[in-house]
Amino acid sequence: MLENKDPQRTPIDQLGEFALIDHLTKHFDIKHKSTIKSIGDDAAVLDFESKKVVVSTDLLIEGVHFDLGYAPLKHLGYKAVVVNISDICAMNANPTQITVSIAVSNRFPLEALEELYEGIRLASKFYNVDVIGGDTTSSTSGLIISITAIGEANEEEIVYRDGAKDTDLLVVTGDLGAAYMGLQVLEREKQVFLVNPNNQPDLDDYTYLIERQLKPEARKDIKELLEKLEVKPTAMIDISDGLSSEIFHLTKSSKVGCNVYEEKLPLDPQLINVCEEFNLDSTTIAINGGEDYELLFTIKMSDYDKIKANPHLNVIGHIVPENEGVHIITRENTKIPLKARGWSAISKDEDE
Amino acid sequence: MLENKDPQRTPIDQLGEFALIDHLTKHFDIKHKSTIKSIGDDAAVLDFESKKVVVSTDLLIEGVHFDLGYAPLKHLGYKAVVVNISDICAMNANPTQITVSIAVSNRFPLEALEELYEGIRLASKFYNVDVIGGDTTSSTSGLIISITAIGEANEEEIVYRDGAKDTDLLVVTGDLGAAYMGLQVLEREKQVFLVNPNNQPDLDDYTYLIERQLKPEARKDIKELLEKLEVKPTAMIDISDGLSSEIFHLTKSSKVGCNVYEEKLPLDPQLINVCEEFNLDSTTIAINGGEDYELLFTIKMSDYDKIKANPHLNVIGHIVPENEGVHIITRENTKIPLKARGWSAISKDEDE
Repeated sequence: MLENKDPQRTPIDQLGEFALIDHLTKHFDIKHKSTIKSIGDDAAVLDFESKKVVVSTDLLIEGVHFDLGYAPLKHLGYKAVVVNISDICAMNANPTQITVSIAVSNRFPLEALEELYEGIRLASKFYNVDVIGGDTTSSTSGLIISITAIGEANEEEIVYRDGAKDTDLLVVTGDLGAAYMGLQVLEREKQVFLVNPNNQPDLDDYTYLIERQLKPEARKDIKELLEKLEVKPTAMIDISDGLSSEIFHLTKSSKVGCNVYEEKLPLDPQLINVCEEFNLDSTTIAINGGEDYELLFTIKMSDYDKIKANPHLNVIGHIVPENEGVHIITRENTKIPLKARGWSAISKDEDE
Repeated sequence: MLENKDPQRTPIDQLGEFALIDHLTKHFDIKHKSTIKSIGDDAAVLDFESKKVVVSTDLLIEGVHFDLGYAPLKHLGYKAVVVNISDICAMNANPTQITVSIAVSNRFPLEALEELYEGIRLASKFYNVDVIGGDTTSSTSGLIISITAIGEANEEEIVYRDGAKDTDLLVVTGDLGAAYMGLQVLEREKQVFLVNPNNQPDLDDYTYLIERQLKPEARKDIKELLEKLEVKPTAMIDISDGLSSEIFHLTKSSKVGCNVYEEKLPLDPQLINVCEEFNLDSTTIAINGGEDYELLFTIKMSDYDKIKANPHLNVIGHIVPENEGVHIITRENTKIPLKARGWSAISKDEDE
């Protein structure tokens, strides 16, 4: 993929570590007054005045979290930022700064890193965050990306996982499962390509799913939306590993149970079509498929009228006392215990 | 090494990602009131009140930054924290929190990660920092450690690289070159071990050098020392890549030149002995050897009397105008241009 796209290949060891950072970040501008000193010293210096500081970090490893066989480097850079910003959004905070460290083997030319950083730059522009530091180093194997995201919020704005109470409503933003099915489509096309490299895939029926996988977005808009609606969530988490897994984190932290209604799960029509094509159950995909980066939160039942008309927000269930457990109510009105499984569990199910 | 030391081998995939983090960090306590929420939510929440926040990040890769053939995992965990705290100290700030992300392949049993985290715990205790977050993931190859360190300081305390002025004195803490020579000793012993695994190395003559390599310390004490002496550095940087490299960062940022005096370079007697044994020039090692994690800073000439009697602080030169360049004055009073080279340059010199 690299060879075709980019005939120029400058070995990265022509530049030193510091020249490389300078080169890759020269088009990165500073947007926040809280960023006093960015890249170029032993550490960045930030000023949050009276606000609270929110910090999250993620490590992305080639061959574990991404496959450069179908993830273009620009998309990968963008997604690496999104994944981290999503965690800041899940605290109901505003993302403000990120640090980006990468390790790469010599098989990556400078032009490949420029692609990666272009994606990082685009995401930092879209999400209005400053890239304030990082580290570049060589790797003995593939590409490694480590990002730390920093955000700010007033104390009373911050939402933890542990605040859900009995009778609260369970709300999810956007729709579920599309990123996972996008990955299935890409995996299939990769296999087709390996058999016949001249095959030109027709992906028109899968554009939404593929975009959800390759270029997901963090729900930075939800904080502002909820403020406008005058609703403060009682607990919140982002959906990175899959709805069921996140529901278990939230209910465990809050010491509550919950009922989720299958018919309320928000599914995109394209997801439903492609699940049929792949002979997969769309509910299973929506529950266990990961990487949606939507937000899952609880609100007081009395806030229901404020959110019910909003197309971004879907009430999918309600909180119950802890001893009642965590269940899904099927379309046939059967109550089944929900299992805490990430998306890696789906393929295991198929093997069973 | 792992097999001999630790007969118990629990596969890490027996635990999930979250259970693994919980297990590894269960003995980590919170020391700072600025840490409002630590591990266990989407992000940590911190409160620095009116203080400025200082952030630095580093990525350590097996086979590039460390060799598990001679670096015990506990020492490695300790050193990974130290390397990052050193950057915070170099801003004249107090380290307060760190995040720790690791990627490991299945060849590491749980007991190995416990060793690594014990080193991280010891360092976080010694340096009084809270471990507030992180990520654990699988790796397709070796061990990867990514640490982000956070510190706090009052605005007027922070020292950047760019404040050095003509006639300022150039000061270095501790002594130089020992960590690099410790690495040479360990490399030699590893080769001996590979030839004859029954050979018991006698390392008594190298204890200081080996400790400097395997268990370096960050100069967290210097901020307090300088406060007591009522001296504020005009510019500061930590010595991770070697004195010459750091001098070039500092002088370039400050737009100045400098003269360094060979006879003033602080060398431990053990370093001098072992350089003779290895037939290496101790000045070259002191200038280009990395990983000392000492601090290099400049002070106003008028502050000289305040620091001259302190055994931790060594004046090694002085700042000159930028157009005069960066030189070393040898013991024979010859003025030679200093080259900006890290410690990797030493072995290249030998090949020439």
